[in-house]
This record gives sequence, structure tokens and C-alpha cells, in this order.
Amino acid sequence: MTPEVSASLLLDLYELTMADAYRREGIADRRATFSLFVRSLPPEWGYLVAAGLQDCLSWLQGLHFTASDLVAIDQFKIFHPDFLDWLSELRFTGSVRAVPEGSIVFAGEPLLEVEGPIAEAQLAETYLLNQMTLQTTLATEAARCRHAAQGRAVMDFALRRVPGTDAGMKLARCCRLVGLDGTSNVAGAARYGVAPSGTMAHSFVQAHADETEAFRAYARAFKEATVLLVDTYDTPLGIERAIQVAGEMRAQGIELHGVRLDSGDLGPLSSLARRRLDEAGFPGMTVFVSGGLDEYKIDDLVERQRAPIDGFGVGTSLGAAGGAPTLDSVYKLVSFGDRPVRKTSTGKATWPAAKQVWRRTDWSGDLLALADETPPGDCYRPLLEPVMHSGRPRSRGQGDLAEASALFEREWLALPGPLKRLRTPALHPVQPSAALLHLTATLGSGQPGPGAGEQQSRLRADRTRSASD
Amino acid sequence: MTPEVSASLLLDLYELTMADAYRREGIADRRATFSLFVRSLPPEWGYLVAAGLQDCLSWLQGLHFTASDLVAIDQFKIFHPDFLDWLSELRFTGSVRAVPEGSIVFAGEPLLEVEGPIAEAQLAETYLLNQMTLQTTLATEAARCRHAAQGRAVMDFALRRVPGTDAGMKLARCCRLVGLDGTSNVAGAARYGVAPSGTMAHSFVQAHADETEAFRAYARAFKEATVLLVDTYDTPLGIERAIQVAGEMRAQGIELHGVRLDSGDLGPLSSLARRRLDEAGFPGMTVFVSGGLDEYKIDDLVERQRAPIDGFGVGTSLGAAGGAPTLDSVYKLVSFGDRPVRKTSTGKATWPAAKQVWRRTDWSGDLLALADETPPGDCYRPLLEPVMHSGRPRSRGQGDLAEASALFEREWLALPGPLKRLRTPALHPVQPSAALLHLTATLGSGQPGPGAGEQQSRLRADRTRSASD
Repeated sequence: MTPEVSASLLLDLYELTMADAYRREGIADRRATFSLFVRSLPPEWGYLVAAGLQDCLSWLQGLHFTASDLVAIDQFKIFHPDFLDWLSELRFTGSVRAVPEGSIVFAGEPLLEVEGPIAEAQLAETYLLNQMTLQTTLATEAARCRHAAQGRAVMDFALRRVPGTDAGMKLARCCRLVGLDGTSNVAGAARYGVAPSGTMAHSFVQAHADETEAFRAYARAFKEATVLLVDTYDTPLGIERAIQVAGEMRAQGIELHGVRLDSGDLGPLSSLARRRLDEAGFPGMTVFVSGGLDEYKIDDLVERQRAPIDGFGVGTSLGAAGGAPTLDSVYKLVSFGDRPVRKTSTGKATWPAAKQVWRRTDWSGDLLALADETPPGDCYRPLLEPVMHSGRPRSRGQGDLAEASALFEREWLALPGPLKRLRTPALHPVQPSAALLHLTATLGSGQPGPGAGEQQSRLRADRTRSASD
Repeated sequence: MTPEVSASLLLDLYELTMADAYRREGIADRRATFSLFVRSLPPEWGYLVAAGLQDCLSWLQGLHFTASDLVAIDQFKIFHPDFLDWLSELRFTGSVRAVPEGSIVFAGEPLLEVEGPIAEAQLAETYLLNQMTLQTTLATEAARCRHAAQGRAVMDFALRRVPGTDAGMKLARCCRLVGLDGTSNVAGAARYGVAPSGTMAHSFVQAHADETEAFRAYARAFKEATVLLVDTYDTPLGIERAIQVAGEMRAQGIELHGVRLDSGDLGPLSSLARRRLDEAGFPGMTVFVSGGLDEYKIDDLVERQRAPIDGFGVGTSLGAAGGAPTLDSVYKLVSFGDRPVRKTSTGKATWPAAKQVWRRTDWSGDLLALADETPPGDCYRPLLEPVMHSGRPRSRGQGDLAEASALFEREWLALPGPLKRLRTPALHPVQPSAALLHLTATLGSGQPGPGAGEQQSRLRADRTRSASD
């Protein structure tokens, strides 16, 4: 009734029908290059943090259709048995060039390029888009929250609201990647080496006849790690009760960690909590807040209200759920055989050919060039590097995430402030190389649709500010 | 470095710290009831389609911490070994009452209630919220698209854009639940018995030197199942080429299935495609559209433009990603021991005690009552039913999804039109029973915070229209 199928079936049906058509034409093995990139950034986003590559490489390396998979496909009654035979032998034998995880990238720049037999490279489209889009969205959103918090702690509290368990786990991984301070997700903390974070829910307070008794019970159990949730009934009263219990614990030689506010007007309430804790002799106790936070609310609390908050627990808005922008990511054929190709659909035109992105070492701009162009000079570094060759990853082993995290820290330090802005960020200039423009014009002349300049101007949209303004 | 952990660790850290605190207090086994509900509906949503229960019951039934899980938790250095011993023995022994999957529910109505030892029932919070929120969002969004299409086919094309693989699979399941016509997700189609859907990508056209050659190659391979994607270069020209190939195939006795448009102004372009296909003698060929569709765009094409479209492929907006509303779902302690409890935080007050929802059989309103109240009368039916007892599901076996799907069809037929509206839907009245109001007032008087009427008035928000307007 419900056959168990492998992760290799995480693809759109048309990847299979096209593979079959290529096979029948005898061109399934002809080499193709696909480029995965984000067409344009969400209006308020000035950059992307590339993420998801490791899962993509694992999927490619593991690609094969099990007997159960083939039975499931056969039951669709769409394909001939000789296609299923062909599928049963299929492995990914292509190569991948990619921007390392943790890199900063911009609209129109390939996050990865897949080169290989067209049928294999085409099959990878759905999974690669799914994971690169998800993880790049999560990593970028997390980085924006980190920026808004200006050095205060940011914790991922999103597992309950993130769309599904895969997104929840990948979010924990992205927390590690972009240096957030913790996650509430126990599986994610364990799997990816993020600090686990969290103390008590309102239900814990409600389960006790009295708020003070609830605080005492928790403090007895967790001592110095105790953060008391003070807003179950009445926040000012909750703060006083927390102070009372903190005093009782101090008498036993134990200093509590802090309090958390999860509702109400967090600016004034955090000021009240800070003032009362200080007055009562607990300047070392911290004030955490949570509840409907996103990067804009964090920024408002930190920058405008100067609220005395030590840490933020962020839920929904870290989770790529409603409200988070959807990345306009695509996986486009850019060459086939010895022929560079491009799509010219209205509003969806693409650059042809395998590419390299060259970044000026002073971050003043990027050059989108053909992959085989001569390096533009010493003041540029290339972003895409070979990560898989003939189906085998150029493995860096278990250290991948730590390495990606270290790379992100270097990128984050170098990323110009105007690009980090939460609203109306500066536009990082991404210019096509002369050779790319020339090739595009050559192809464009023979086909209908918009000309070569269309994509570049659309990338800019209404965002004509430069990084120096 | 990266230990493999089980799905039982898909929980927030504070579920564990609270369990430990309860254990130390000697009250971990005291019975508690938690209620999972959506506080308020997104502004344009008139109803919810309940979904996710089966996965929740499976998770509860499988709850146990493996040796690897315990090692991972131990490495946090938060817990004492005696808590880990206690955890190693833990299973879910509680009971669940729930609204069956496929039911229509409204704000404030429990989708499920968990009754059991407080430590166990608390541990389930994160996973249950994650899955019920995700799947109820996906099912409702899918139902709204079905409504907008007014009987035309709707296909899920969202796997590449849905946030992660779990969400992609659950979306395919929801397609089956609410009767969409197909999914592009091969694994989802196989797993949940949904019709697989999809034909060719732009890359297939680009991989051929000539659009007509691409159409011929595909039509030769898939014959009557062929849907030609006509917008890679120039849509009107693509339509003519599709007609040419359809004529060539007809000469061989084969009638092609249709064409698909994926860009541009879909209303006029679909009219052009329909007119040209009819003029050329192919009135049986269908017109499919895709590309940035959601329920509002489908409605505009169907209702306002009267576009001659036979089917819609929907991506992002089915996928609970950006743009889709986030459900304000919560899992609240409503009784502990023999004591009903409620939370009175500002703007987050809740009703106390285990509940039953009674729906008037003419759909004129619901009654939110205490679980142990006398049934209100013959013109009401109860929505929550027992689905798990002492940790064992009241299994209905493999037929669950088919049964849920059949239930949804009955609900969909009965759901009043004004509640189905895509914008400014009517408000379905949900009234607290006299006994619930009385109990709430009793509890409220002894605690600070908003009074008993607060939640009901907030549910209504600005939406004071009735179902009869």
C-alpha cells in the first residue's frame, strides 16, 4: 500500500520523463552543465550565506534506485521496463563546482554548477534546489538576526514552528554555520555541536500551585543554569518572585542565571527587569526575551529602544516559514555538448555557459565570468571550487561544518557594513565579464526574447544604491 | 563527532529540563492534560483542515531514547546520571483525543488533547506542534487552491521550493488528503498514492538545437501523455510548433495531451493557446499553466479572466514557505492533577480544562465545552474522539489516509460557502459553553490578567461578519 522509497526518489516526475526521452534519443550521456543560482534577492536582503552543499553532495553520491523504488516507479504505468533497467544501473558520475558553505554570495551568482551526462545532471535538479534554497534561506535569516543583535546572544527556538523536521535539523546546522549561540532543538544540538538552550515553559509554572514554588523547584534542580520565565501571570510580579527565589538560592551559595520574558512590551519590561534585578543586588543575572521576534524587532529593541537585553530566543522567523522571503532559486541548463545555451523566456532570461565568480579582494564588486576565462588579476579571488569529481566528493571529512563555520566568520568580518543593513541594504555590484557579454550577445541574436543586458538590469531592480553610500 | 540520534530527540531542551524538575519533585507521574490548538486564523483564512495526527501518534508510540540519544544528552553536561536512567525507561503511556484528519476546525478549537503523566505529555509538545502546524497549514493551503480552481485540476509542483524534504513529503500526503489531482514529487506519489504529474522542463527544449525537434523527441517517447512546454523562447511561436508536432503525431494515430505555459501573462496566453489549438483542429488538447501561482492568482484567472485553463501546477505557495501564513498554534497545559489551569499572559490567555468541540449539524456554529459535559443535544456532534489509549493507538491500519480523505470530502461538501471564501471569509461562531465560562471565571478571579471573555473577543478580532452574510 505505502511502499518505502529511498531518498533518490526525492525528485520531480519530469526529471524521469526527460531522462527517458534523452535515453531514447541516444543522448542521455551527452555532457551538460547546469547552474544553480538565485535570480534576485528579497528586497531587504543585501547578501546570501551559501549553505546546503554537504547534503547535496551526499545525495549525489548516494544516488541509486532501489528495487522498491523501481517497483514504485513501475506502478505509475508511465515507463517501459527498459527504462527501469537503465535506471537500476544509474549512478551520479558527474562533477560539481561550488561556492564553499559559509561563503557570501549575491543574486545571479552560481552557488553550484553540475557537469555530467545530461540525464544524471537533470535528475539532481529537484533535490539540489530543495536543499540549497532551504539552507541558504535559513543561514541568511540567522545571520541577519545575529547582525541585529549586535553581539548579544541569539538562540534558535524555532523547532516547533519550522516547517517539518528536516527544516528543523537544517536550521540547527545553520545556527552552527553562522555562529548563533544556541538551539532549543535537542537532536540538532547533538547532531551539529550547537549549544543546547532552554529552561522552562509556562506550563511548568502552571503545574505548580504558586509561581514562587515553581521557581524554587526549578532552581533547586538546575542551580546556576536556572533562567526563570516570569510572564505566566503578571510580569512585574513574576520579576519580584524571581528576585525572592534568587535571594533564597544566594543564601545557599547559588547564583541564578537570569529571567526570561515571553510576552508583552519587551522593551519597557526588560528595562523593568534589569532595574529591579540591579536594585535587588543581582546585577549578574541576565535578561532573556522571546516571543514573535525577528531581525527587525531585535534591531528595534537593541538600536532604538536600547533595551538592556542579554539574549534573544527567535522562533518562527528563523524557520523559513510564513513571513520569511522565498528565494527565487533556479537550476538552469547553461551548456549542452559543446554548445552554450540560455533561456530567453520573458523575465526569466539566463546567462549561458559554465561560470566562475571573481570577487575583488576589497569587496568592491564581483565579476561574473566564463569558467574558462583567464583570471582577471591579482585583486580578484575565485569563489567556485571543485567539490566533486566523477561522482566522488573531494572529501574534507567530518571537519566540513567546522571549516564552513570558520569560513563564514572570515566572510562576516570582511562583508561591508552597508551590505549587512537590515533594510535598504547597499547593492553589491556584480558585473558580467566582456567575454560573457559577448557570448550572450552571439546567442541572443539568433533567438527571440530579451537581450543580454536584461538580467543585469533586473538584478538591480529598484536598488540602485551602491555599497559606498 | 556527529552522533546519530533518534527522532525522539526532536524536542526542545526545556521539555527535558522540566521533566527532570518534575522527577526531582516526585510529580513526574501526576496526570496532566495539554490542549493543542490554533489561537487565531490568518486574516484571509475561514477554516483549517486538520492534518498531521497520524505522524504524531506514530511518534508518541515510538518514543524512547536510544543509547546514542542518552550519550548525546549526557554530553550536554546539564543532567545527572539518574535522570538519564529515568529517561532510558521512558515510554509514552498517555492517551490522546483528537479531531480526525481531514476535519474542518476553527480558531481556539483543540486539534488534539494529550492526557498522561505530565513529564511524558510535556515531552511531546515540540514534535506535535511541529507536525500539526506544518500539515494543517499545507492541507488548508491546498484546499484553498482546490476551491479557487473550481473543479479544474490542481497539481503540487512544490518539492523544489518547499522548506526541506519532510515538508515536501507531507505536502504530497496533504494533496491526497484534500483531493488535489497530482504531485510532481515522485517519492510522495509513491508513498501516498497520489497521481504523479509532470512532463518537461525548459532545459529539455534548450538541450535540442530546435524547439520543434525537442517537441518531436518528447512526443515520440510519451505519446498520448505528452504535454509540451511552449514558453522557452517565444510563447506564440511555441504554440504553433506544438500544433505542428501534434499534427505530425495525429498522422501516426496519436493524440497529444496538451501544452503548458510557465511564464508571461497567463490569462491572454492561455486564451491564445486555446484558440489556436481549436482553430488547428485540436479541441481535445488541454492547456496547463504554472509559474508563481497561488490561490488568489488561480481565482483571478478562473473567476475574473475566465481563462480557458484546464489545470494549474502550484509551487511555492503550496509549500508553507514565504508568503504562506504561519499558524499561531500552541500546546497548553489545561489541567494538572485534579486542578484545571489556565494561562493569563497578556494577549495569550487560554481556556482551562480538557475540552470537547460540539458542532451544530447544520454548520451554524460550534460549542467549545468541557470534555465531561453532558452532550448539548441532537443537533450537535462531537469532533474529538479517542485515538490513543495508554500509549496504544486505536489503530485503523493502512486505511487511515484513505479514510481521512473520504472524511475530508464529506466535510468539504458540508462546509458553507461563505467560510470557503478566499478573502474576507465569514466567521464561524465558536461559543464557549456556560460551564466553561463559569469554570474560567472561577479560576480567573484568583489570578491576575485578562478576564474570561478576552479570548473569545480576540478570536473574532476585526472579523465580525457572520456566515450568513
